[in-house]
Amino acid sequence: MTTESQVTAPTQAVAGFRLTIKAPLVLQSGAKLAPVTMAYQTYGQSNAEGTNCVLVCHALTGDHFVAGTHPITGRPGWWDALVGPGRVLDTNRFFVVCANVLGGCMGSTGPKEINPETGHPWGLKFPVITIRDMVQAQAALLDHLGVGQVFCVVGGSMGAMQVMEWAHRFPERVFAAAPIAGSYRHSAQNIAFHEVGRQAIMADLDWQHGDYLEKGTMPKRGLAVARMAAHITYLSETALHRKFGRKLQDRSALTYGFDADFQVESYLRHQGYTFVDRFDPNSYLYITRAMDYFDLAEENGGVLSNAFVGTPVRFCLISFSSDWLFPTSESRTIAHALNAVAANVSFVEIESDKGHDAFLLDEPEFRSTLQGFIDGAANIRGLPRRATP
Amino acid sequence: MTTESQVTAPTQAVAGFRLTIKAPLVLQSGAKLAPVTMAYQTYGQSNAEGTNCVLVCHALTGDHFVAGTHPITGRPGWWDALVGPGRVLDTNRFFVVCANVLGGCMGSTGPKEINPETGHPWGLKFPVITIRDMVQAQAALLDHLGVGQVFCVVGGSMGAMQVMEWAHRFPERVFAAAPIAGSYRHSAQNIAFHEVGRQAIMADLDWQHGDYLEKGTMPKRGLAVARMAAHITYLSETALHRKFGRKLQDRSALTYGFDADFQVESYLRHQGYTFVDRFDPNSYLYITRAMDYFDLAEENGGVLSNAFVGTPVRFCLISFSSDWLFPTSESRTIAHALNAVAANVSFVEIESDKGHDAFLLDEPEFRSTLQGFIDGAANIRGLPRRATP
Repeated sequence: MTTESQVTAPTQAVAGFRLTIKAPLVLQSGAKLAPVTMAYQTYGQSNAEGTNCVLVCHALTGDHFVAGTHPITGRPGWWDALVGPGRVLDTNRFFVVCANVLGGCMGSTGPKEINPETGHPWGLKFPVITIRDMVQAQAALLDHLGVGQVFCVVGGSMGAMQVMEWAHRFPERVFAAAPIAGSYRHSAQNIAFHEVGRQAIMADLDWQHGDYLEKGTMPKRGLAVARMAAHITYLSETALHRKFGRKLQDRSALTYGFDADFQVESYLRHQGYTFVDRFDPNSYLYITRAMDYFDLAEENGGVLSNAFVGTPVRFCLISFSSDWLFPTSESRTIAHALNAVAANVSFVEIESDKGHDAFLLDEPEFRSTLQGFIDGAANIRGLPRRATP
Repeated sequence: MTTESQVTAPTQAVAGFRLTIKAPLVLQSGAKLAPVTMAYQTYGQSNAEGTNCVLVCHALTGDHFVAGTHPITGRPGWWDALVGPGRVLDTNRFFVVCANVLGGCMGSTGPKEINPETGHPWGLKFPVITIRDMVQAQAALLDHLGVGQVFCVVGGSMGAMQVMEWAHRFPERVFAAAPIAGSYRHSAQNIAFHEVGRQAIMADLDWQHGDYLEKGTMPKRGLAVARMAAHITYLSETALHRKFGRKLQDRSALTYGFDADFQVESYLRHQGYTFVDRFDPNSYLYITRAMDYFDLAEENGGVLSNAFVGTPVRFCLISFSSDWLFPTSESRTIAHALNAVAANVSFVEIESDKGHDAFLLDEPEFRSTLQGFIDGAANIRGLPRRATP
């Protein structure tokens, strides 16, 4: 099922490596997309056999800068706590790869890139892409990198959806899979939250029906509102309460106005208005749509376990107790489906009050759980053991 | 503490009764507001002693058309199932009163009404009002109606906040109080959701810094987005899943576009875009702000029970098990605080998977619980018993 592709040599750029795949990628919708550029980063070295690759899949607003310093924000990569020498995804042992998803806005082909047929940004002429399409593009990248079977595919949130799709679509190319804080399909409530975000972007007149790059405008206000709404869903009520409660922002009393009296308001506004500097509004539409469309059960006759009959993949499912965006019940459903086909699966719910965002934070129990799974799978795969500190 | 007021005779209009209070209302902020018009409805008749009044307090987007046919939407009033002859709030026995809240947009003084000092709509020059201010205005209305002690103050959501404020501020004027699906203070998460709604409205260029009525524009897109975000919080994940799941809207397959493929998207858009025909965007800002500011504990030295020391009021607290906007834990905190001052309180959590909106629906257990409380309190108060059917 991998895309046959002619590839050009990757070039090192400010935004990491780029690979351009000239052969058309046939999308789930039936549309063909060419060329496809994948922006990606690698950490550590591939072994001679090409068996030590860890493919990291990023979430909705993530990117391929997993570790080290992000070249645009100047802050640590989103999983810097987990990826590096001696860390859980140990770059002394593993060849860690992460690509900006298809439809993204950090260098991979997406709606803000130039449509070669018109010479103008794609905008809404960009085809709707799916989680499957993202994974197909990643597979083409791994072909180019000489990775046959991935040692472990791992990711949280939308990253977990990609992990599930990888295990379903390419079972022989995945030795181990760790979908974290994820699901096999997007729930009605999650679709609803995404729809609010999309409506907020589209409601901004500066969106210009998707042609803002051509028109020289930018729907920053709409995108900021979308981000604010989404951000609430990433946290738990408990975390919000502990972090902010009803504490006032730089004032000792209510001002009886519409400024950000409460710290939680100030925080949300900050989240919204910093986001617009690093994210493309149309990408937000496309990627949320890809998540909404994801439903591995529906694609397999309504029975999730059908997607994994006879799977050789070793699974480790991780959820967080206070995550209400991708609650534990979703991971439990996956665990049941995998058990129903006698798959090799472990499932751990991490006690945390930090909500969905916990997968991005340095939660010790999460880290040790993933560490245990990775080390155990590495032993079975015959990869080097972790150096004892 | 009641406002001394000169009143003009109420006039019957399309939008029910109106009372204009000429004496200034001193707001919690210290600002003075005059005149104050209260739009209200009454159902049933006051008894000779004026002891059979049930004051119904409405929620954020509710109004005073509790029962019968709403004159604008043509649909039943929001608590028509509970208010009427022989119903829980039996208009054969009780004199039911409901007023549009101060700051509202259905006839009571609010930001869309004319500022008498300028001859133009108030807009953002309208003073920020609080739940206490809403209650003070209601008290002035009851003064006018000849109601000394209210038999029962009842309401859900923001209505419950008013009930709590009534019991705190005017304990001698409240015989019984039924705060439903409410709280004694707005949580950080709820403030956050409100802030998203306000930001959505303010992000709409047609909002015109609040002067849209003057400028002849209307921030419908922003208000619709605010409503959509809020609407998700009114339902439970279970209810959304049962009602919509991932069902498609008038189509048999995904369209790979941004139309409303899913029923839940179509539903949300409908909720958003019908709301703008009946609600004023600035009112939405002011009323959400009033809810955010509400904190009966903070106002009483950080100890909620201080607000109810020696209270003679009989309380019935009702919550719904799947309500995540005003979860049961909030009502439980109130129950504990009332117990701590040996108040007369009963507390019932209704099993329902319908979320916060359950208080607006005809949930049999909810209805019978409220019925039991009302009937018991009426007996103690010496009001007529319910006619046996």
